[in-house]
Amino acid sequence: MSADITIPVGADPETAIGQLTFDAQGLLPAIVQQWDSREVLMLGWMDAEAVRRTMTEGRVTYWSRSRQEYWRKGDTSGHVQFVRALAYDCDGDTLLVEVDQHGAACHTGTRSCFDGRGLDVLAAPSPTP
Amino acid sequence: MSADITIPVGADPETAIGQLTFDAQGLLPAIVQQWDSREVLMLGWMDAEAVRRTMTEGRVTYWSRSRQEYWRKGDTSGHVQFVRALAYDCDGDTLLVEVDQHGAACHTGTRSCFDGRGLDVLAAPSPTP
Repeated sequence: MSADITIPVGADPETAIGQLTFDAQGLLPAIVQQWDSREVLMLGWMDAEAVRRTMTEGRVTYWSRSRQEYWRKGDTSGHVQFVRALAYDCDGDTLLVEVDQHGAACHTGTRSCFDGRGLDVLAAPSPTP
Repeated sequence: MSADITIPVGADPETAIGQLTFDAQGLLPAIVQQWDSREVLMLGWMDAEAVRRTMTEGRVTYWSRSRQEYWRKGDTSGHVQFVRALAYDCDGDTLLVEVDQHGAACHTGTRSCFDGRGLDVLAAPSPTP
């Protein structure tokens, strides 16, 4: 676990990016959630520049690990993600992006990348807290 | 992007794990969501054995990258995560775990690891689709 961080409220993008922890490839995972339904849509990867663009352009940009290039969601598919909110986690190595997703978030055509992809698990009933 | 995968409905844990894509460290990210409120609580990392335990024990187990050991959420904190559902994403390199989280998911005491950690962004109003 990295050390816990606190980024000042209202920090500019460079200050915020300077506090985040990127991995050995210079990337961190970004969880993408539909802002109103709270559905988890996908997970993408961002480097510092993708975070910078996402913070300042109102659209979500990722780094594509397979194509080794920036990828602004929707530019080819039309399935645009408009940024609503952004948060970092306690140790600054993961982002949560709330978006307004137009159309399918998944390139396979499903709304979310997890739709219809459930696995059987032992789901024990929770004891009363 | 890895190739898209389909895991047969009702697959046993070994079949499912065999289809997933783990990174160079043998890990994949697991997004954790409270099943009813749909709040995103945290992101953890799992190796094959952590996935196996999570699928079969009714409790969520991670691999701690800093401590290099398995970590069953709640064993020391009491803040247990009971497994409600599990899904993989289109290319099989990310998991979404729906849980019933007792207490705080974050070791800092906040309910989610993202609570109170918002960043200022340009949030353009979405055009009407």
